[in-house]
Amino acid sequence: MTTLSTRALPGGTTHLVRPRALRIAMVAPPYYPVPPQAYGGTEAVVAGLVDRLVSRGHHVTLFAAGPRGTTAQEFVRTSERTLSARLGEAIPEVVNAARVLGLLRSRTVDLVHDHTVAGPLTAPSRAVPTLVTVHGSIAELAELYRPLGPTVRLVAISHAQRASEPGLPWEATVPNGIDVASFPFREHKDDYVLFLGRFHPQKAPHLAIEAARRAGVRIILAGKRTEPVEDEYYRTKVAPLLGRDAVDVGVADGVLKRRLLAGARCLVFPIRWDEPFGLVMVEAMACGTPVVALSHGSAPEVVAHGRTGFVVERPEQLARAIEDCERLEPADCRRQVSEHFSVDAMAAGYERAYRRVLERGRRPGGRLPQARAQG
Amino acid sequence: MTTLSTRALPGGTTHLVRPRALRIAMVAPPYYPVPPQAYGGTEAVVAGLVDRLVSRGHHVTLFAAGPRGTTAQEFVRTSERTLSARLGEAIPEVVNAARVLGLLRSRTVDLVHDHTVAGPLTAPSRAVPTLVTVHGSIAELAELYRPLGPTVRLVAISHAQRASEPGLPWEATVPNGIDVASFPFREHKDDYVLFLGRFHPQKAPHLAIEAARRAGVRIILAGKRTEPVEDEYYRTKVAPLLGRDAVDVGVADGVLKRRLLAGARCLVFPIRWDEPFGLVMVEAMACGTPVVALSHGSAPEVVAHGRTGFVVERPEQLARAIEDCERLEPADCRRQVSEHFSVDAMAAGYERAYRRVLERGRRPGGRLPQARAQG
Repeated sequence: MTTLSTRALPGGTTHLVRPRALRIAMVAPPYYPVPPQAYGGTEAVVAGLVDRLVSRGHHVTLFAAGPRGTTAQEFVRTSERTLSARLGEAIPEVVNAARVLGLLRSRTVDLVHDHTVAGPLTAPSRAVPTLVTVHGSIAELAELYRPLGPTVRLVAISHAQRASEPGLPWEATVPNGIDVASFPFREHKDDYVLFLGRFHPQKAPHLAIEAARRAGVRIILAGKRTEPVEDEYYRTKVAPLLGRDAVDVGVADGVLKRRLLAGARCLVFPIRWDEPFGLVMVEAMACGTPVVALSHGSAPEVVAHGRTGFVVERPEQLARAIEDCERLEPADCRRQVSEHFSVDAMAAGYERAYRRVLERGRRPGGRLPQARAQG
Repeated sequence: MTTLSTRALPGGTTHLVRPRALRIAMVAPPYYPVPPQAYGGTEAVVAGLVDRLVSRGHHVTLFAAGPRGTTAQEFVRTSERTLSARLGEAIPEVVNAARVLGLLRSRTVDLVHDHTVAGPLTAPSRAVPTLVTVHGSIAELAELYRPLGPTVRLVAISHAQRASEPGLPWEATVPNGIDVASFPFREHKDDYVLFLGRFHPQKAPHLAIEAARRAGVRIILAGKRTEPVEDEYYRTKVAPLLGRDAVDVGVADGVLKRRLLAGARCLVFPIRWDEPFGLVMVEAMACGTPVVALSHGSAPEVVAHGRTGFVVERPEQLARAIEDCERLEPADCRRQVSEHFSVDAMAAGYERAYRRVLERGRRPGGRLPQARAQG
């Protein structure tokens, strides 16, 4: 997959050379294994990216917790056990960043690609550049990246995310990618629509039920509810709407998830916040299943409106959009994913970003700055 | 308060000079104002230290959230509002560290004294040394400081804390200090003993009730219970023991706290974990009130056993210790605090630590190292 380029050699000759393989330190959060068994969106992205970078000829050192699960040439375990119970807490996050900082000292890499929250704080102490993928809400995280200035280069996972904070040091926009081959394609659908996701007011499954009911089609709901806010929302807004035509099947594992996605007439995704990237939309389309979404966050750029689904402004428009899915082509949905949201597309996007960052470091006057709190 | 020292001047003459004033960047957590109104132990320590350093002639730049509340010559607000509701979360902690890193860039200081969790991650990017006071549990935080190596110098708040991780780069042990004058001294006590602290199994107020009852003396309990674990513990272990001789008065503000402490025959402190420093023991002694404690964490070094209280090994020994407090001198208790646990003693301890760190930086071969993940 590595592309060839012409490069001037000493003595004035020009020669076809294979771009040199990069040595990449890939830093994963410590909360789930890489790849994860179930929950763990960031860890899934990291796993797919690592494997593709390796197959593209690069040398990857993966820093992650738990068992080894990728083809990275070097695996550096940051913690014996994964720390899912402590996701969101300050101390494990900061301890993990310190560990990686220490473990990096004895290694020679070309750049660090960091997927964690606290890791960027250590970027100013390094001579090599740090690329950070913004997996969380940029509204909160902008205040982390802004003071770090040009010592971190950022990757947005959607144009919407990047557009909401245009002043940050963005290097690229690289949508998350999935392993398309691992999702079954189904041309002929069963007679239901699907909600797949957390039972959370921001995911708004109650709007999905109401829309399906108005469209006269059965809806299956699958997802977790573990946090108090999810429980409360489920009890007051979702449970009263359930019935023979609206069935909650609970948390779906990878197998059930794929079966549900592949069989659905469409995925209903009535998102009510600017989620930086909605991976489930991509997974649905990979199965040949169109997506009916509210227009928030990445939805308008993930769904090709009128071809792989419909993105509407108001909840009242969801029912009609569900009906309109009838006339969409499952093959178009899958193609949209292969072209734009596959791990291959993602790895190619990151490789371009890596080379651009390193190129800037080499240009005269383009040296990556070393920020110092004190000169 | 600044001490004079002799210093060799160019030309060989020796002269009495005032040690030069230090420019100190003091970094507080963003969760409570400095000083705090009620809860906020770290912020209280920072406030006392800042004011004493200023009165000792130093220049302090305080980085803190919320309103200005100290005599620091420069106050840099890291956040309009304090973030108590988010204490313990990763994002506000990491964002605060990034902000301080950015704000420090335009300032010239001799050293950074950091009281936060994430701040130490930024130390390797600075030319000036960073001193970190370990306010939390060293068992968890050791894994943060160890990889940072000599780029941070640590201050323990008790010998017990330091002894549990002797291999870390400790610079000094400086116990937390209180403003002794703000605590009322009472020679003659009322007929009760006191438990003051959270209703938490690790603080074990149920042991205090049982001991007081065996000693035949009334006990007053004051403290918060807001977390689920505290509520559960209170319901099952404390509430059943309450009665006419064991009364819970709820959370005590600064005024009530002082009245309760000053009037008590002793403070019962049946701590069951290695708390790095138990400030309430010091506050009690400042009021002339001895302390009866279980031997965990800092208790044996804060309480002068047999003079300002009793430190016992087993809960069964608490009742006898309560009775024995009768023969202790309230004045001895207060003197113990003035000498060892006052803000003056604390500021003097930190000043010595600052000078030692800077001296090391100046010694040939003693340069403070710049850690880099990549050379």
